Amino acid sequence: MELPVLGETGLIEFLTRNLNTNHAGVIKGVGDDAAVLKVSNKEWLLLTTDMLVEDVHFSLSYVSPAQIGIKAMVASVSDIAAMGGRPVHAVVSLGVPPRLSVEVLEGVYAGLRQAAGEYGVNIVGGDTVKSPGRLIINVALLGSVEAGQAVYRSGARPGDLIFVTGSLGNSAAGLYLCQNPDINVSLEAAAFLKLAQLEPRARVKVGRLLSKTGKISSMDDISDGLASELHEICRASGAGCRIRTAAVPVDRRMKEAADTIGSDPIDWALYGGEDFELVFTTPPDSAVLIKKDLEEKVEKCYLIGEIVPAAEGVKMELPQGYFVPLEAKGYDHFKGSYPGCRSTGSSWEKR
Amino acid sequence: MELPVLGETGLIEFLTRNLNTNHAGVIKGVGDDAAVLKVSNKEWLLLTTDMLVEDVHFSLSYVSPAQIGIKAMVASVSDIAAMGGRPVHAVVSLGVPPRLSVEVLEGVYAGLRQAAGEYGVNIVGGDTVKSPGRLIINVALLGSVEAGQAVYRSGARPGDLIFVTGSLGNSAAGLYLCQNPDINVSLEAAAFLKLAQLEPRARVKVGRLLSKTGKISSMDDISDGLASELHEICRASGAGCRIRTAAVPVDRRMKEAADTIGSDPIDWALYGGEDFELVFTTPPDSAVLIKKDLEEKVEKCYLIGEIVPAAEGVKMELPQGYFVPLEAKGYDHFKGSYPGCRSTGSSWEKR
Repeated sequence: MELPVLGETGLIEFLTRNLNTNHAGVIKGVGDDAAVLKVSNKEWLLLTTDMLVEDVHFSLSYVSPAQIGIKAMVASVSDIAAMGGRPVHAVVSLGVPPRLSVEVLEGVYAGLRQAAGEYGVNIVGGDTVKSPGRLIINVALLGSVEAGQAVYRSGARPGDLIFVTGSLGNSAAGLYLCQNPDINVSLEAAAFLKLAQLEPRARVKVGRLLSKTGKISSMDDISDGLASELHEICRASGAGCRIRTAAVPVDRRMKEAADTIGSDPIDWALYGGEDFELVFTTPPDSAVLIKKDLEEKVEKCYLIGEIVPAAEGVKMELPQGYFVPLEAKGYDHFKGSYPGCRSTGSSWEKR
Repeated sequence: MELPVLGETGLIEFLTRNLNTNHAGVIKGVGDDAAVLKVSNKEWLLLTTDMLVEDVHFSLSYVSPAQIGIKAMVASVSDIAAMGGRPVHAVVSLGVPPRLSVEVLEGVYAGLRQAAGEYGVNIVGGDTVKSPGRLIINVALLGSVEAGQAVYRSGARPGDLIFVTGSLGNSAAGLYLCQNPDINVSLEAAAFLKLAQLEPRARVKVGRLLSKTGKISSMDDISDGLASELHEICRASGAGCRIRTAAVPVDRRMKEAADTIGSDPIDWALYGGEDFELVFTTPPDSAVLIKKDLEEKVEKCYLIGEIVPAAEGVKMELPQGYFVPLEAKGYDHFKGSYPGCRSTGSSWEKR
């Protein structure tokens, strides 16, 4: 079987289908942002791992060494945030091409330290090996969450409302600008979007606040794109969903970049990954209070749609008022990269 | 600064010198086989990570996919064994070159599952990404040990006796045979030595039994070679050591392979890595009982020397009766590979 046919999700399902994690200490094994492990009646552990590979997740042609470290740490921290937990201890593996100078590696570590400090993570160990080809960085991260309060992908029920925690597509737009430095956008837009790509932030505070409400039926971080995450939530929950593309929050600077290259910003917002915002669902009777609480304490969140029965599929409502299937495409490591820009003629909210 | 000058140990020390792990939950951070983390008054957690890179740690020209999985899991399990702990939960990151078939990856996972089953490990999650060059596999492993019973590298004191848990150099000899298939050794020796390289085993039972005695002053797994591990123990403990090369256990099949290529088996035994045996130290008044207990319950162990004051250095006694410095060489990812074979004219014990 060929990898591009199976794709990333198919491959993971195929490889992990025989894993037996039928162990008293495993509350949730393969299949969510992080594993959930029981250590005591008060606290559960979360465990996640993320690998970044040069020329796949970053290129030394546009990223600084520190930004590699930041992104590696943030990608793992975001998985813990998506479970409603707080990150605690990390171990870092580096696969190092001998062509790199020690200064580059020191920069990577400076970025790791910076992000670790920001999110309260202790770097407690690691492994450093030679890599004949690309620079590789793997961050395995241990987090914790109050027993019973981990938020999974699998609890969304028809009628639940779907929210996202911030504007989407900025990171994908920033990647496009990094890879195409001749695109003529305003300095402000270029700086903002590139920073979203190169120094992303994880939504730990929001995730913690949401898990503590006890009313979040499902949650995921937007690492592979909103469309892809919604499909994951729907599949794990045995449900479908409808979102309104006009309700998906889009930053004016991302719109500026999309306009400049003649593409539709909704494509980056739906299919671009690495925003590390959270998408979550909650029953309608909790939604108003949760939104209010979140916006008073941390920041705005955006109602983008609702969960429906599985038979109704995963669909988006275009601004013209009709529904079309929301494709699961997004960043897939084996099927291909970010999709090309389509033109749907839709409009969008400004942040 | 160039990597080959700094070397692996120097690089790790340099990169981690500014890490602040001054956190109540961190009992032991960077600098041992695994981090030690406090979760309760009864139990400590152990956390380790190991990265294997194609063409550095294995070559698809002589290793089966399942053996890659086995070795990746065993390398991490061995780190937990070296702390006296038991391995519990693992997360696996795969960096996958698109040239590989799904069947190869399934083989890798079959090996991971097999080794996980053998050591009681639950594979609870992972990450699967594209790698444009080599196959990469990272296993991050969580273990546990009774509070207060983790065994560090740093507790060796002058007078303590040094033991190893099995014959050394088999894995390095096996690697040599894998890389030089025309070498003419007996089928038995070839099969035994290659298996030591390709399907190593971790000494979890021995490590557990030793930690429970409460009398082990230091311990390390032999992943980079005995000489390298002894230097680590001595440096961490602020001590020196003397070993007798004639007391280092060497299997007759490894000796056969060394004889065949005209090299001295003590070189593989001292400087060859990946045996995953344990080297440990204990005060002399505990040594007899511990050796007896270990050999009744699990297997033989071998007295190879003793700890001395730091000022006396790290030395080996040659069969001729005089002492020479034991070089820290072994497998170093940045200084170079296994050293060439030297001729010291020493003899050795047979297992």
